[in-house]
Amino acid sequence: RLIYLVILILLFSLLNLWKWFPRETASAPSGGAKSTLWSFNLHMGFMILAWTVFATEGVLAYATWERSSFICGQPTRHSRVKVIHASLNFICAVMTAMGLLAIFQNHAVKEIPPLCSAHSWLGIITASLTFIAALAGTVFFLLAKKLGISKDVRARVAPWHRLVGLLAYFLGLATCSLGIQEKQGFITCASGAYCLSKTLLTILVILVYALGACVAYVLSKED
Amino acid sequence: RLIYLVILILLFSLLNLWKWFPRETASAPSGGAKSTLWSFNLHMGFMILAWTVFATEGVLAYATWERSSFICGQPTRHSRVKVIHASLNFICAVMTAMGLLAIFQNHAVKEIPPLCSAHSWLGIITASLTFIAALAGTVFFLLAKKLGISKDVRARVAPWHRLVGLLAYFLGLATCSLGIQEKQGFITCASGAYCLSKTLLTILVILVYALGACVAYVLSKED
Ligand code: HEM
Ligand code: HEM
Ligand code: HEM
Ligand code: HEM
Ligand SMILES: O=C1O[C@H]([C@@H](O)CO)C(O)=C1O
Repeated sequence: RLIYLVILILLFSLLNLWKWFPRETASAPSGGAKSTLWSFNLHMGFMILAWTVFATEGVLAYATWERSSFICGQPTRHSRVKVIHASLNFICAVMTAMGLLAIFQNHAVKEIPPLCSAHSWLGIITASLTFIAALAGTVFFLLAKKLGISKDVRARVAPWHRLVGLLAYFLGLATCSLGIQEKQGFITCASGAYCLSKTLLTILVILVYALGACVAYVLSKED
Repeated sequence: RLIYLVILILLFSLLNLWKWFPRETASAPSGGAKSTLWSFNLHMGFMILAWTVFATEGVLAYATWERSSFICGQPTRHSRVKVIHASLNFICAVMTAMGLLAIFQNHAVKEIPPLCSAHSWLGIITASLTFIAALAGTVFFLLAKKLGISKDVRARVAPWHRLVGLLAYFLGLATCSLGIQEKQGFITCASGAYCLSKTLLTILVILVYALGACVAYVLSKED
C-alpha cells in the first residue's frame, strides 16, 4: 500500500512541475490581449491546482492520515484528520469558485458567449457537486455538535457525502482533461502541427488520468 | 442492485438514440468534401458504439449474467458467460481497430498530421490496453486448455487481466469524451455560438460520464 502512496507523491511533484509549463508557454494567445482583468490562465491554474493537488489530497486524507501510518509513523486522530480533509477540500472549493469567476469575467469582457462547450457544462456539474459536498460536510460533520445534529443522522448522511464527493472528484479530473483538450484546440503552433505547448498539454492529460487511476486504486484497496 | 442494471439499460437506449444525431447533424463539414474514402464519422460511430455499448456490456457481463439473476431469471453458467464476455469484448476490440483505421486513413488522405492531440495519444494508450486485454483473455482463458496452461497460471493472470481491462474501459470512455470535446471545437454553428449539433455533443459527454459512474457503482457493489 505504501508503494502507491509514494507513486502518488511522485505524481504530485510531476504534475506540479509540468503544470506551470503550459501556463507559461500557453500564455501568449490570451495574455497578449491586455483587454481582460482576469486572465484565462488564472482559470486553468486555479482548476488544475485545485483538483490535482488539493482535491486529491483531500479525498485521500482519511486513507493517508488515518487508515495508514504513512505520514507520522502512526495514524492521526480522527478529529484531526477530519479538519485536514475539510481544509483541503475547502481550499479546493474556494479555488474552483475563483477559477469560475476568472473564466466568466474573462469571457464577459471578451464578449465570448458563455457555456457553449461540453467542458463548461461538465464544469458546472462538477462545481455544483463540490459545493454540495462541502456544504453537507460543514453542516453535518464540522458543525454537527453546534447545530445539535444526532449521530444517527450523521451516520446516514456519511455514505451520501462520500458518493457525492467521489463523483465530484472524478468528474473534476474529467473536466480538467476536457478543458485541456479544448485549450489545445485553441493553440496554433508557430511551425507546423506540433509544438512544445501542445505536447505538454497532451502529457498533462495523460498524467491527470494516471493520477485518477492511482487514486481509484488506493481507494479500492482501502475498502 | 436490479435498479442499477435497469438504469444502465435505459442509458444504453438513450445513448443509442442520441448517438446517431450528432453523426447526422455533424456530417455536413466533413461529408461535404468527397476526397476521403473513410469518413471521419466512421471513426466517431465505431468508437462510440464500441465503448458505450459493447465494452460496457462486455465489462459488466460477469455482473449481469453470472453474479445476478437479472437476465434469465437464474445465473448463466460460467463457461457460457466467458464466451459472452469474450464475444462482446472482441467486437469492441475489432470496432476500435476499424475506428483507428478510419481516422488514420481519413487524415492521411486529407494530409492532416497524425497524433497531435491529447485525445489521439490517450486513444493509442486505450487501444493498446484493449488489445493486450483481449490477447491475454484469448490465450489464458479461451485457449488455455488447448495451450496446456495450468489453473495456477490462469488464477495468477486473472487479476491483471481485470486491472488492464478496467483501465482500458474507463480510459475508453475518457478518450471518447475528449474526442467529442475536440470534435465540438471543429464545429462552427451557422448562427451564433449555439446550435443543435454542439448541444447534442455536450449531452453525449454528460451521458458518457453518467454511464461510467453507473458502471463503477455496479462493479463496486459486486465486490
Ligand atoms: C486544466 C483545467 C482547465 C482548463 C484548461 C480549462 C479550460 C477552459 C476553456 C478553454 C474554457 C473556454 C471555453 C468555453 O467557454 O467553454 C473554459 C470554460 C469553462 N470552464 Fe474550464 N478549464 C479547466 C478546468 C475547469 C474545471 C475543473 C472547471 C469546473 C470545476 C471548469 C469550468 C469551466 C466553465 C464553467 C467554463 C465556462 C465559462 C463560460 O462559458 O463563460 N474548468 N475552461
Ligand atoms: C468541507 C467540508 C467537509 C467536511 C467537514 C467533510 C467531512 C467528511 C467526513 C467526516 C468524512 C468521513 C465519512 C465517513 O465516516 O465515512 C468524509 C468523507 C469523504 N469526503 Fe468529505 N467533507 C467535506 C468536504 C468534502 C468535499 C468538498 C469532498 C469532495 C471534493 C469530499 C469528499 C469526501 C470523500 C470522497 C469521502 C470518503 C473518503 C474515504 O472514505 O476515504 N468531502 N468527509
Ligand atoms: C466519440 C468518440 C470519438 C470522437 C468524437 C473522436 C474524435 C476524433 C477527432 C476529432 C480526431 C482528429 C483530431 C486528431 O488528429 O487528434 C480523432 C483522432 C483520433 N482518435 Fe478519436 N474520437 C473518438 C473516440 C476515439 C477512441 C475511443 C479512440 C481510441 C480508442 C480514438 C482514437 C483516435 C486516434 C488515435 C486519433 C489520431 C489519429 C491521427 O492522429 O491521425 N478516438 N478522434
Ligand atoms: C477477448 C477475450 C477475453 C477473454 C477470453 C476474457 C476472459 C475473462 C475472464 C475469464 C474473466 C474472469 C476473471 C476472473 O476470474 O476474475 C475476465 C474478467 C474481466 N475482463 Fe476479460 N476477457 C477478454 C477480453 C477482455 C477485454 C478486451 C476487456 C476490456 C475491455 C476485458 C475486461 C475484463 C474485466 C474488467 C474483467 C473483470 C470483470 C468483473 O470482475 O466483473 N476482458 N475476462
Ligand atoms: O470535423 C472533423 O474534424 C476532423 C479534422 O478534419 C479536423 O481538422 C475531421 O476529420 C473532421 O471531419
